[in-house]
Amino acid sequence: MTRSPGPFTGRTLAGLAADLRQGRTTSAELTRLALDAIAALNPRLNAFVTVDAEGALDAAQRAGEELAGGTDRGPLHGVPVAVKDLIMVAGLPVTMGSRHFAGHVPSADAECVARLRRAGAVIVGTTTTHEFAYGPTGDRSATGPARNPWDPSRMSGGSSGGSAAAVAAGLVPLALGTDTGGSVRIPAALCGVAGFKPAYGAIPADGVFPLSRTFDHVGVLAAGPADCLTAYHCLTGPSGRDAPARPARPGGRTGDAAWAVPPGGTAPTEPVGHGGAGPAWPREPGRADEEHRPHPHGPGDSGRVRVAWLDPGGLFPCDPRVVRAVRAVAGALEEVRLPAGAGEALRETYTTIQSCEAAAVHAGRLEEAPELFDPEVLDRLRAAAETPGWRYVRAVEARAELAEAVGVVSDGHDVLALPTVPIVAPPLGQRETEIDGKPAAVRAALLALTSPWNVLALPALTVPAGTVDGLPVGLQLVCRPGCEPLLFEVARTLRVPG
Amino acid sequence: MTRSPGPFTGRTLAGLAADLRQGRTTSAELTRLALDAIAALNPRLNAFVTVDAEGALDAAQRAGEELAGGTDRGPLHGVPVAVKDLIMVAGLPVTMGSRHFAGHVPSADAECVARLRRAGAVIVGTTTTHEFAYGPTGDRSATGPARNPWDPSRMSGGSSGGSAAAVAAGLVPLALGTDTGGSVRIPAALCGVAGFKPAYGAIPADGVFPLSRTFDHVGVLAAGPADCLTAYHCLTGPSGRDAPARPARPGGRTGDAAWAVPPGGTAPTEPVGHGGAGPAWPREPGRADEEHRPHPHGPGDSGRVRVAWLDPGGLFPCDPRVVRAVRAVAGALEEVRLPAGAGEALRETYTTIQSCEAAAVHAGRLEEAPELFDPEVLDRLRAAAETPGWRYVRAVEARAELAEAVGVVSDGHDVLALPTVPIVAPPLGQRETEIDGKPAAVRAALLALTSPWNVLALPALTVPAGTVDGLPVGLQLVCRPGCEPLLFEVARTLRVPG
Repeated sequence: MTRSPGPFTGRTLAGLAADLRQGRTTSAELTRLALDAIAALNPRLNAFVTVDAEGALDAAQRAGEELAGGTDRGPLHGVPVAVKDLIMVAGLPVTMGSRHFAGHVPSADAECVARLRRAGAVIVGTTTTHEFAYGPTGDRSATGPARNPWDPSRMSGGSSGGSAAAVAAGLVPLALGTDTGGSVRIPAALCGVAGFKPAYGAIPADGVFPLSRTFDHVGVLAAGPADCLTAYHCLTGPSGRDAPARPARPGGRTGDAAWAVPPGGTAPTEPVGHGGAGPAWPREPGRADEEHRPHPHGPGDSGRVRVAWLDPGGLFPCDPRVVRAVRAVAGALEEVRLPAGAGEALRETYTTIQSCEAAAVHAGRLEEAPELFDPEVLDRLRAAAETPGWRYVRAVEARAELAEAVGVVSDGHDVLALPTVPIVAPPLGQRETEIDGKPAAVRAALLALTSPWNVLALPALTVPAGTVDGLPVGLQLVCRPGCEPLLFEVARTLRVPG
Repeated sequence: MTRSPGPFTGRTLAGLAADLRQGRTTSAELTRLALDAIAALNPRLNAFVTVDAEGALDAAQRAGEELAGGTDRGPLHGVPVAVKDLIMVAGLPVTMGSRHFAGHVPSADAECVARLRRAGAVIVGTTTTHEFAYGPTGDRSATGPARNPWDPSRMSGGSSGGSAAAVAAGLVPLALGTDTGGSVRIPAALCGVAGFKPAYGAIPADGVFPLSRTFDHVGVLAAGPADCLTAYHCLTGPSGRDAPARPARPGGRTGDAAWAVPPGGTAPTEPVGHGGAGPAWPREPGRADEEHRPHPHGPGDSGRVRVAWLDPGGLFPCDPRVVRAVRAVAGALEEVRLPAGAGEALRETYTTIQSCEAAAVHAGRLEEAPELFDPEVLDRLRAAAETPGWRYVRAVEARAELAEAVGVVSDGHDVLALPTVPIVAPPLGQRETEIDGKPAAVRAALLALTSPWNVLALPALTVPAGTVDGLPVGLQLVCRPGCEPLLFEVARTLRVPG
């Protein structure tokens, strides 16, 4: 089974931008296409929670007038986008997928939403999240499960399941998500789209409902990696920070930051510039040479980026068909392995820190109105609240030690490649499965290959890597903070089957 | 009852340094005085755990030869000092006051001990600590309780009780301690000496057995504040960091750091220079003018340092006689109060963070050999290990919020003054007492006025402020990191009765 194509299937942000500027379409037309497709397909997918047709058409009208009048806010100007139902959008209901926030209408935009608006994007609505983003399956929400466009009986993955489904179905070309242990990358992989979790803090989390503050990231989902990079630039570059028309293209700063996470697990929050990678937008006269200068990380062109295959078996048992499919896309690479025990240590560190931080966020609600939680979410939060504090302290210490251990493995490589998720999308509601003939917990499997990069605060990109049994799989690329352009350089060289 | 004077009673580091250089004494003579006095008085006080007569006399011999040969390591050169039995001293038994470390002999010095040695100090031995520094009473240790020189039936306070008793009895002129919630200042106040807890990290804690890593400080105890400042300079200035002879006097940098604690509760780790305050050592020709230049924090001389009295009742019930005595020494000051609830919030924040961090340090010992702990320490650690992780997460957040709240109170003032401890030294072993006719827990009382400044990572100095019922009380002075010289400026203006 394959997804049925929506109005944005096969279209790129660069193509849409060109069409808008060359009169082949208008923002209003794109927005109506999005709204009509959502109306038609959402009953099947449950990707959207709230659709703001009126607000979107108004914004599209303004965007069209600005563009016609010569004000150009860059590549998102006039483009319909979706926002996860956990990121504040002023004036729209934002529910966190929870009955605790039924009817909640924030009065102010999250910073990332404000940046979207300054970039001229048209927000068409909010997308389904696992309740409070507390689950990688995407199927426990007060607003119903997000369904996988490739097979609506299967889970989208989560927690940003609605954003992934909306992009995969071609309802919008771009959506915002959040990623605490893989919540952008897991649904992106299971739904066959690209998803990018930048460095910690690169896109500010202000106005995003927290799950686990030291792991929470804002990320982007789009059909392919080039569109993720474009959105990332818009959300982090000068155009994202104030409101200029014709944003200047930031310079190609590409740092040399170490793999190691500093104490406390934070990473540089300054976004990097375009470097030598990524699409140039808007193209400025006399800047094209930047596209071709040698990359500071390799001795020469992008062919010299040092990529290694990270054996995913060191993190979790993997479906060998998924590994084969992803590895075929990654190509022939030197293979590296984590130190013995690092996989288990990363998983424990993730679980302990995330449990304590999530329980801290929800302690009041657990006390005062536990009945409003989804029962599974409630059980998990109650268990999380039992985690002793000394284990949290130990986990924070382990986080720094793991960064060193993994740094040794990746020494000599710029990018690590591995599958994003060790399995294809399970059926909705499934919690136990088999991997290579052995029993495995679905949640643990979904998170196993993505959460390490939240623990280590490393940027990670997932790109579509074909299908297994007709369901998508993702290739994940991981780098040091400051080397983000390399992820996109590598992604551009991949040849995906089908 | 008053303490019987020891060989260093009434002598200052500056006086000893002058005597050493002008041939009125030698390091060997001072060291023998210390060793003889320890031999005579320690059976009564239990201030020392291990006395290294041979090593001390060797070091004194070398110091004497260096000084005679014209090599001058500064004001500690040749001076006998003591080190808390929780700070690693290479080659000496260091037991943490615990049977877990009976006979433990570290192979390397703690960084602060290495600095003492580079400054030419003569380490005469290790001093009693409450087991693992986990208690402000100083009376639960595998090596027995430290006793108060003013009344050996009373507690020294803790956890650096032996260091305070050793200085109070005049056995040594200087001792190192550690301070996690008051463990330098509480015993200093109860034993009638001065104690200084610098900014977080100003004296490195490397090689110090941890209690609660985000609160642990290394501090100094001496008869008066001027000697604390001298020792602080030796442990943080250039002479402390490498091994020059004739250390240059650092420039008078006095920062303008905010009261606020940065996320994670850390404060600047760079020590400040002498500023306009403090004794000049070694006096260098042409530098005397620095002593008199206007202080950057006030419009003019030290009389303009803005000192406020912080109502201690906002933190804990206080013995009114202690408050009266301390306030008389502090003089007429504007009074400020903490916001309602801040005292309770500071106490809870301290207890939660310290419990989780201490339990993390001792989790293995609690599992494998609980019987080796003192029973009271064991009970407390087991209770600490039950603290849920979400409370720790909340406490870390509260720590930052409290810094802001207290910053508002202290806005417009350079130094806050309050009692160091709300009561005089209780009898050994006492756990419940009465304060102003109402029941109060001894441990909570001892910590109540000191631990807030560990939570807020603010430098704090305690100075002797007379006696109540023949037992010493302390005046505590608190400032922003970077303003340490002001504490000593204010301390120099105090007139202590008796």
